[in-house]
Amino acid sequence: MAEPAYQHIQFDVAENGVATLTFNLPAMANAMDLLGVQETLDALRRCEQRDDVGAVVLTGAGEHAFSAGFNLKEIPFAQADASAIRAHFETLAMWWHQVLHKVIHLPKPVLAAVNGVAAGVGLGMTIAADMAVAVDSASFLCAWHTIGLANDAATSYTLVKIVGFRRAMELMLTNRTLDAEEALDWQIVNRIYPRGDFARNVAQIAADLAAGPTHLQAMAKARFHAGWRQSIEECTEFEIGNVMNSLADPYFRRALDQFLRKETRSDKVQVHLPPSRRHPT
Amino acid sequence: MAEPAYQHIQFDVAENGVATLTFNLPAMANAMDLLGVQETLDALRRCEQRDDVGAVVLTGAGEHAFSAGFNLKEIPFAQADASAIRAHFETLAMWWHQVLHKVIHLPKPVLAAVNGVAAGVGLGMTIAADMAVAVDSASFLCAWHTIGLANDAATSYTLVKIVGFRRAMELMLTNRTLDAEEALDWQIVNRIYPRGDFARNVAQIAADLAAGPTHLQAMAKARFHAGWRQSIEECTEFEIGNVMNSLADPYFRRALDQFLRKETRSDKVQVHLPPSRRHPT
Amino acid sequence: MAEPAYQHIQFDVAENGVATLTFNLPAMANAMDLLGVQETLDALRRCEQRDDVGAVVLTGAGEHAFSAGFNLKEIPFAQADASAIRAHFETLAMWWHQVLHKVIHLPKPVLAAVNGVAAGVGLGMTIAADMAVAVDSASFLCAWHTIGLANDAATSYTLVKIVGFRRAMELMLTNRTLDAEEALDWQIVNRIYPRGDFARNVAQIAADLAAGPTHLQAMAKARFHAGWRQSIEECTEFEIGNVMNSLADPYFRRALDQFLRKETRSDKVQVHLPPSRRHPT
Repeated sequence: MAEPAYQHIQFDVAENGVATLTFNLPAMANAMDLLGVQETLDALRRCEQRDDVGAVVLTGAGEHAFSAGFNLKEIPFAQADASAIRAHFETLAMWWHQVLHKVIHLPKPVLAAVNGVAAGVGLGMTIAADMAVAVDSASFLCAWHTIGLANDAATSYTLVKIVGFRRAMELMLTNRTLDAEEALDWQIVNRIYPRGDFARNVAQIAADLAAGPTHLQAMAKARFHAGWRQSIEECTEFEIGNVMNSLADPYFRRALDQFLRKETRSDKVQVHLPPSRRHPT
Repeated sequence: MAEPAYQHIQFDVAENGVATLTFNLPAMANAMDLLGVQETLDALRRCEQRDDVGAVVLTGAGEHAFSAGFNLKEIPFAQADASAIRAHFETLAMWWHQVLHKVIHLPKPVLAAVNGVAAGVGLGMTIAADMAVAVDSASFLCAWHTIGLANDAATSYTLVKIVGFRRAMELMLTNRTLDAEEALDWQIVNRIYPRGDFARNVAQIAADLAAGPTHLQAMAKARFHAGWRQSIEECTEFEIGNVMNSLADPYFRRALDQFLRKETRSDKVQVHLPPSRRHPT
Repeated sequence: MAEPAYQHIQFDVAENGVATLTFNLPAMANAMDLLGVQETLDALRRCEQRDDVGAVVLTGAGEHAFSAGFNLKEIPFAQADASAIRAHFETLAMWWHQVLHKVIHLPKPVLAAVNGVAAGVGLGMTIAADMAVAVDSASFLCAWHTIGLANDAATSYTLVKIVGFRRAMELMLTNRTLDAEEALDWQIVNRIYPRGDFARNVAQIAADLAAGPTHLQAMAKARFHAGWRQSIEECTEFEIGNVMNSLADPYFRRALDQFLRKETRSDKVQVHLPPSRRHPT
C-alpha cells in the first residue's frame, strides 16, 4: 500500500509490521505546526485501521531533537492581536490532544524512540507512549512555564502514573531539564542507548512488539489505563471478559499447542516467548 | 483446632498466629487445579474468621516453584471441544478471582513468600499480597500471552500500583521474565534472601506481622486500597472514623500507657514498636 | 505587614516571597497542641490570601525534630474519662485535617524542610507538601500504631502516590522507621543535605519556587491532584481550559517575548528558566 505523501512527518510501514512516524521538521527541532499535527493524527488513524501494522514507533528526524512540541513561530506574534493568538493556541491544543488520546487508545503497542530533545508536547508524547527508549544524549523538559503556558499534552494524566507524585511535582514546579540517565531512573524511558546502538535497538524492540499477539497487547494496554481507576471487582470482571474473548481467538489454540509440546520435552517450567502473530510455528 | 485435610494445599496455624498456606502440587510447579483453588479460598476464609490467626503466609512446596498459576493439564485439550474448554477456563477464572478478592480484602496482613517461579496467577497472587519476599533464585513472569490468553488475576488492578505504568506495560507487552534482583528493584518483592536464610526470615517477618495490632493493620490495608481512588476529603473522613474506632479498642489504652511510661524515662523521641496484640506488657 | 503574634508557631514572610511556618515547641519535639494546629491553619490561610507570598516553607524549630505530630501530653490521660479522651482526639483530628486539606489545595508551592524527626502527622505534613527536603540525620516514622491509633493525616491519600503500594503497606504494617537516605530512595523527600548545607539549600529552593509563575504552579499542582482520578479526556479538557487561562495572563506575553528574543540569538533549543514573576526582564 502506498503511504500518503505527508509534508511535515514521514510515515512508513515495514514488512515486519512496524510503522514508523517521524516528526520531520528538523530545522524547527521537529516542533509541529498545525499541518504536522493533523498529519500525525491521520497517520495514527491509519496505524489503527491497517492489519499489517503491529506496532508504532514515534521518532524525530535528525540527531538533535525528538520534538520540541508545537512550533511557536507559526503565528506572527508581533502583528497578531490577542484573540488571534488565543484562537491559534486553542486550535493547536485541540488537535494535539486528539493525537494524545489516539496514542493512549490505539489498540497496538506504541514505542517512543527519543532521538534527542523532548520538550513540551514532545515530552507529553514520550510519556503517552506505551514504552519509550532514548539515546543517551537525549534530554527531557516541560518547557510550558518557560513560555508562560499551563502544562497540557495529557501530562496531568500520564506523568504521575510513571514518575510518581513527588517527581511529577518537582519536574513541573521547578521546570528542570532531565538528562537521559535521570529519565531512565525516573522511568520516563525504559532503556537508553549510545547513539551508535540506538537505531538497531529501536528496530529490534519494535520488531518484537510487532510480532507479538496484537489483540492481547491491546487488551493489556486498555486494562491498565482503565484499571487505574477501578475497584478490584470491576478489574477482574473485565479481565474475565478478556480471557473469554482471547479463548475465542484462533491464536489461543496455536499458542497453547506450542506451549504444551515444549512442556512435554522438559520437566522444568521454561520461559517461552509467545508465538509470533505472523509466523505460526 | 484441627486443620481441614486439604489435598492440593497444606494449611496450618502456628501458636504465634501465623497461618501458612502452601500450594502443594510440586510435580505441577504448584499450578493449581480447580480443587486446589477451592481449597485455597476455603483456607483464606478460615484465616479471616479465626481469632488465632494474625497473619497469613502464602508459599509453595519444594524449591522450584511458588506457583505456575493454574494447571493447564487438568483438561484434556486434545479431546475437548471448544465449549468445554471455554467452560473450564471460565470456571477456573471465577474461582481464582474470588481468591484474589479475598487476599485483597482479608483484614489481616498477607505475606507472599516466593520460594521459586511465580508465573501467571502465581505472579498475580504475589502482587495481591500486602508484602512479598523471595528467594534470590526466584523468577517472575506474566506467562498469559505465552499461551494466548489475556492477562487476569487482578493484574490490571495491582500491577501499576506497585511497579508504575511504564514497567507494568513493559512486563505485559514484552512478556519478559524478571529475576529476583529485578523484582526487588521493581518493588514486586520487599526483600530477597539466599535460599539458606529464606525460611528464617519469612518466619520472623510473619511473626512480627502476626504480633502486630490486627485491627489497625486491617484499617491501614483497607484505607490504602480505597484511598487510591478517593479525594483527600473522602480519605480524611474515613481516617477520622478509623481513629475514633481505634480509640474505642482496649488496645489503645494499653499502647498509650506503655508509650507514655517509656517517654517519661527519656527526653528524646524514641522509636517504639507497637505492643504485641498477644502479650500485653 | 506585621505578622500575627503566634505562640506555638513562628511565621514570617521574606522580601523574596518566601513564607516560613516553623513548628515552635522544640521541648515537645514540635508536636502541636490544639492552639498550634489552629495557628498553623491561620498562617496557611494568610499564605493563600497574601499576594506577597510566592511559596511556603514548613519546618521545625531546633535541630532535633521537624514535628512529632500532635502533643499527647495536652490531655491528662490518667484523670480523663473515655469520652473526654474521645472528644479531645476528635477535635484534634478535625483541625489537623483542615490543615492537611489546606496544604494540598493551597494554590502556591509548599516545601517541607524536614530538619529532624517527622513522626505521625509530622510525616503526614511532609508528604502532603508539594516538595520536601531533609537534613541527612532526619528520620521518618508512622508512629500511629505505636500508640494504638489508626493512621490518619491523609496518609491514605498521599502515601501510595509517592512511595507506591508495596512500600506504603510495608511502612504502615511494620511501623518501621526510615532514615534520610531511605526516605530519599523512597521519594518521601526530593533531596537530602548535611546539616551545615541545609538552611542554604532550603532558602535557595524556596526562593526559586517563590520567584516562579505562581498561577502556573498552582494549575500544575491542582491538575496532578485531580488528574490522578480522571480519564485522559477529562484531563485534557481541563488542561485546555488552563492553557486558555494562562494565555489571558500578562505573564504569558512577557515570557513568550523573552523566549523568542533568546531563540533568535541561537539556532539551538535551549533550556530557559521561566522569567521571574517579580522582576520582569
